[in-house]
Formats: sequence, structure tokens, C-alpha cells
Amino acid sequence: MLITLLTDFGTADYFVGAMKGAILSVNEQARIIDITHEIPPHDIRSGAFTLLNSYDTFPSGTIHVAVVDPGVGSERRPILISSSEYYFVGPDNGLFTYVYERLSNVRVYHLTNSEFFRQPVSSTFQGRDVFAPVAAAVSKGTRPERFGEEIDDPVRLGPLTPQRIDRERIDAQIISIDRFGNCITNITRDLLTDDMIERGARLKINDRAIHDFRQYFKDGADDDATAGAVFAIWGSAGFLEIASNGTSAASLLGASTGQAVTLFQPVMRAGE
Amino acid sequence: MLITLLTDFGTADYFVGAMKGAILSVNEQARIIDITHEIPPHDIRSGAFTLLNSYDTFPSGTIHVAVVDPGVGSERRPILISSSEYYFVGPDNGLFTYVYERLSNVRVYHLTNSEFFRQPVSSTFQGRDVFAPVAAAVSKGTRPERFGEEIDDPVRLGPLTPQRIDRERIDAQIISIDRFGNCITNITRDLLTDDMIERGARLKINDRAIHDFRQYFKDGADDDATAGAVFAIWGSAGFLEIASNGTSAASLLGASTGQAVTLFQPVMRAGE
Amino acid sequence: MLITLLTDFGTADYFVGAMKGAILSVNEQARIIDITHEIPPHDIRSGAFTLLNSYDTFPSGTIHVAVVDPGVGSERRPILISSSEYYFVGPDNGLFTYVYERLSNVRVYHLTNSEFFRQPVSSTFQGRDVFAPVAAAVSKGTRPERFGEEIDDPVRLGPLTPQRIDRERIDAQIISIDRFGNCITNITRDLLTDDMIERGARLKINDRAIHDFRQYFKDGADDDATAGAVFAIWGSAGFLEIASNGTSAASLLGASTGQAVTLFQPVMRAGE
Repeated sequence: MLITLLTDFGTADYFVGAMKGAILSVNEQARIIDITHEIPPHDIRSGAFTLLNSYDTFPSGTIHVAVVDPGVGSERRPILISSSEYYFVGPDNGLFTYVYERLSNVRVYHLTNSEFFRQPVSSTFQGRDVFAPVAAAVSKGTRPERFGEEIDDPVRLGPLTPQRIDRERIDAQIISIDRFGNCITNITRDLLTDDMIERGARLKINDRAIHDFRQYFKDGADDDATAGAVFAIWGSAGFLEIASNGTSAASLLGASTGQAVTLFQPVMRAGE
Repeated sequence: MLITLLTDFGTADYFVGAMKGAILSVNEQARIIDITHEIPPHDIRSGAFTLLNSYDTFPSGTIHVAVVDPGVGSERRPILISSSEYYFVGPDNGLFTYVYERLSNVRVYHLTNSEFFRQPVSSTFQGRDVFAPVAAAVSKGTRPERFGEEIDDPVRLGPLTPQRIDRERIDAQIISIDRFGNCITNITRDLLTDDMIERGARLKINDRAIHDFRQYFKDGADDDATAGAVFAIWGSAGFLEIASNGTSAASLLGASTGQAVTLFQPVMRAGE
Repeated sequence: MLITLLTDFGTADYFVGAMKGAILSVNEQARIIDITHEIPPHDIRSGAFTLLNSYDTFPSGTIHVAVVDPGVGSERRPILISSSEYYFVGPDNGLFTYVYERLSNVRVYHLTNSEFFRQPVSSTFQGRDVFAPVAAAVSKGTRPERFGEEIDDPVRLGPLTPQRIDRERIDAQIISIDRFGNCITNITRDLLTDDMIERGARLKINDRAIHDFRQYFKDGADDDATAGAVFAIWGSAGFLEIASNGTSAASLLGASTGQAVTLFQPVMRAGE
């Protein structure tokens, strides 16, 4: 059974190793896959976004353990999510916001049955003492109801959706910048159709206008003169990204996470 | 069979990949788990500390390979440690100091039987050529005696214990700072009992006094005004940590690894 | 079946997790091993060098997926390489230059059969949508011919070989600097024999001459006075490295990747 890990623990400390050991001590046959441990410390939204972009590439039945947890030890609940497709284990702080709406037959359980915890439970490291052993127990077939009461009010972050200002203008945001300097916006295909692109949609960021919408990174690149050109492209996560060939668009634009991006639609018609 | 890796190799070079390949070439069924490869280069004490905090979360019988090795190729011995609980493979330079005292039936073998080494043995990369294939051979059931002579004088670092100055004062140290800026001291529960905390124990670091001892990170946090407050908390590694909610205590205090922390016990009675 | 990953994706984004999921969704039994994800972004030569130094430590039959891909989505071909020893999957941009010459019975296939791709294929993430599922299909026994046409003109980078200037002087280069500050040159044993070393060969880098050729890092180190001394040593990758005990030779020398290193051979005789 596959168990994935997504945390903000970094890889320099003993945290990740201890979680892996805690899983394997409960189920030595568990197969552990690292998604990432480099979520920016305590950045729940970034963790939620990364989880959204990776969880459904895994086989059905995979158990995803996600821990980005500024409030460890406080009253926020540890939870297990079961669904027709996947399991999720982690803190109830919004980290699973974007997956709830994509799963079917979702049930959420408050992890209270300490029989499944690693003892003694430390006050600071639930990843090792609660989430890891619970995930391992799930991988051995323990039924979700056994871990605690079902709850119906899991915490959800506000939506990623940009804000419409008027018929033409939509205020969007950079929600993530990747290693290559690509700036991922929260603009989705329903806000920017191919038709709109053809009729002259454009983006504006830091007073710089972007008119160039591409299919591939090197699309329309006849020569090296296009190095340094900034363009928009539909990213692999399903969001519009602002990119540049062979260099960091974020550096070129002076862009950072959370920053405003304005989308000007050429015309908004009812029904689009 | 599980084989864990803990090194200072980083993850950018080919070192870790080559070690994994060398293990799998001897035992393709070995299951390799990364603990960390981000021990600060050549920092044996840091490696020993991280190993201490992760090795015993793994199932009994796990083979831990640890390589932090400033003296590779010099006369320091490559060793295999067997015990009732775990195996360890690595350089005899103090890296295993803290685990020796926690294991039972410890035996230490000098790895000299080149039959188990990857050939040719390079002068600079024993991780790949000695430790990896020996760990893989252990995972296949090779008896420890076959690798070389037993030795009775493995290298040990000095203890982590703080130094008592007088009846009240103990000079302790920050032994590690984690990704979140929590400062892990070498103060253990025998030096700071709950009773002492109640009667007014305090810490001093960089001329700043710390009186606030907490159970949870958000303990006593009635409002956001406590963000930025510095407090002490028993960490998951069993040591007292200096922490702060939602921000780096190390940054707030200007603290660094190796730095002095003074513990003032309210009273010292015989027997404590 | 073993599948290794070597990329420039870093470990902070969702890219690596998504590739692993895409592999496991095709073959849940695949065993995935990370070589590294820290190749400098878009640095094909560095990726090729790291692959060269790790691929052949793995058991025969291992499938190596390597993705360093500045031109994703452009016309560069996605390829599968089969050989008597290993499989390789990745972009045809020179990344496999140094392994071609070391393999036997090499055949290269252009990946065009979209039946084996993850659908829909995004324009920006072939790692997830092409290379991962193809590698997984290979691990399940799909024959190479099924993925597309064989090609005979795969892209190769220029050789790593240094340039001979005259009978004595060879202009070499630092091709990589590792985590410890060791500077790996492109000088191989055929250019610098033991005999030459005995007769007084030397290196020059940034106007500093290096005469000291060692067997071990601590070789000839009678006392601590040698800390900070710079010397040359045959590295585990088979290239001459410039190193220093307990400190970074790169920092001491102000050296960087790509920088010139001059080798002065004492005498050049025909045939050497």
C-alpha cells in the first residue's frame, strides 16, 4: 500500500526520517513516497496547492499524509479523510480545501482514538506520533470509523478564484512561483477562453502588459531573440502561468507570490 | 529488509544515487529509506544527534547507514555495529556515540574483508564502495563476524550533558536549530523537573530571560499578541527547546548552534 | 523493477510527486529511486555528468528516467534508449551523451505512440505525461519498438575532453563542483599517468600552482598544518579533482564551474 508524504519539515532535520520510521514500525510493508518536504514553513495555502497538483496522479487507494501545521498541539483537530478515490491524513486547518470538492463520498473523521497513536504522544510532533501511525493503520485495512467520530465541518480556506471587478477586468493573483521562475496565477480556462485570447485578452503585472499566449515554451521562437520575452501559457496544473524562455519570469517581472495580476477580457458575454 | 541512509552528501551530487545503486546491485530487494542527506558537511555531532532522534522509530532489524566522514581514506576505521535492535554501518569517528548507550548486546566490527566491498574501492568514496555494499550484505543475512575483527574501542564523542556551575546555575548549549527556528538545547528532564518549573526556573540566552514554559506551541495563546513571544517547551527529541509561535526563535534571539544557554534552577536539593 | 529519477525539478514543487504518481498509476509495483532532482535548472551537461556517475551502480535492467529539458514542447524528441545493460527515458537533447559510448547494443526510439502517454498530454510537463508513463510501461515489459520508430541520430554534446595546446600544456576545465567544494576537472588518467606525476606534472588554476597529488584526503597530513592545503586527487568519478582537507577548495581558489585549469605534463612522448 502506498503512503505519500507532503510536509513543510524540510529534509535537513530528523522529522521526515522519524515519520517514515513511525509508519514502517506499524506496517513494515508500507511503501512510502515523498511528494515534497519543502512547502514554505507554515504556508497552508501553498501546501494545499501542491497537494492539489499531485494527489490524483497516484493510484486509487493511495494514502496521502500532509502536514503543514502552524497550530500543532492547539485545538485544531487531527483528521482522516476517506473517499472513493483516496485517503488523506493530517491537520484540519484548510490543507485539504481543494481536494474536498474533487472527491466523491467524502467522510472526515476526527482522530481521537489514541490506541492508534505512537506513545507517548509528544506535544510538538503529531506527524510522527499521530499522522504517521494512523496512516500506517489505514494501510493495514483499519476501518476509518475506528479512529474517531465523523465530523461535518472541516476547515476550508477561501477559494482560489480571482475577483471580477467589471465587465472587462478581473483581479487575479500569483499563487505560486516554481523553481524555474514560472508564475502560476489563479486564472483558469473558464475565465480565459481560446476565443477571448483570439480577440485580444491581455494580462497586466507590475505595469507590464502581456499579450503573448503560447502553446509551448518555444512556440513561435524563431530565433534566440525571444529569450527574455515574457508570455502566458496554460500550465500543467491547469492554471495560467507567466513564463519566459530559458530565464526566470519572476525575476524579469520582479514578481512574488500573492502579487496582483490583472486580466483584461476583451468582451464578457453572458454565458461565458 | 530496510536500509536507511543518513549522510552529509547533500542531494545535488551523484553521491546518494551512487550509494543507492551500490546497495541495490548487491540486494535488489533492499528497501532504501532516506533519513536525511543534509547534515552540515563534516559535522559529526550534528549527524550523531539526528541519528539519535530517528533510528529507534524504525522497526527492529533495520540497518542504518550513516556517513559523515571528514577523514575518509585516512586511518579511521569503517565499522559495522550489531545489537539486539538494529545494525549500523559507517565510519568509526563518533557518529554512533549516542546510540551505543541505548542498544543492548552491542558488538562492533572493523570492516576489513574486501570480499564485501565494491571493486575497485576508490580512495574518496567509501559510502559507495564499502558502507553501501556491506549494508546490503547484512540485509541478505551475512553474519557480522564475516566482515572483520570485533573491536572494543569504538570512538565516542564527549557527552551532550550541560555543565553544572553552582547549586543554581547550569551552563547548557544550543545543540541544534531546526527548520522552524526552534533552538534545541541539551537540557533534559532530569535537570529541569516540573517541580523546578513551578518554583520559578528560568533560562537566559543572549541576556534575554525566558520564564515561560509551555506544553503546546499555542498554549496560553489567548490572542495574536503572543506571536513573537519566546518560550521553552519539551521537544519531540526529549530536549528542552526554545521556540516562538509562528516565527523563528533563533532569529528573534540571534541564536546559533553551539551557543551558550544558562539554566537557573530555583533550588537544588540532594537527589535531584 | 527499478526506475530511477534524475531531474532539474527541485524538490519544492509538485513536479517530482506528480511524476512518481504517474509512474505508480501505470505500474503500482514499480520501485522508484531518486538519484537527484537538484541538477541546476536547464543545465544539460551537468545532468549528463551526474547520470554518468551514477547509472552503472544500479542493477542491470534498471530504467533511468532523466529530465533536464529547456526545450520542453518544442521539436526536440522524447526518446527511449534500450541497451544490453539499462534503459533510459528522457528528452533527446544531449543528456545521454556520455552513456551512449559505454553501453552495448544501443537502440534509440522516438516516443510517438501516444497510447502510452498520460492523457491529456500537457504542453509543459512531459516528465509526468510522457516520460513517467513510458518508463512504467517499460517496467511492465512493453517492448521498445512499440513506443515509436527507431532513430539513428540522437543528439550528443561535445566531448568532455580537454584540449592539447602543445607538447606540455593541456587546457582543461572544472566540470563540476560538489557539495564539499571539491572541483572536478575533465582530466582523466590517460592524460596524467602515475609516471607523469612522479616526474613533476602540475596544475595551474587562477595563477595558483598545484604540485601535490594524493591518494587519500588525509594522505601526508602529519599535522593540522595541512588544513587549507590544496591538492589533487583521483575522484570517485574517475576524474582528477582539486580538493582541500576540511575546507572548500572551490572557495580557497575562487573557482567556479566551467573555469580553466591548465595541466602541465612534464614530458609528452608519442603514444601517451
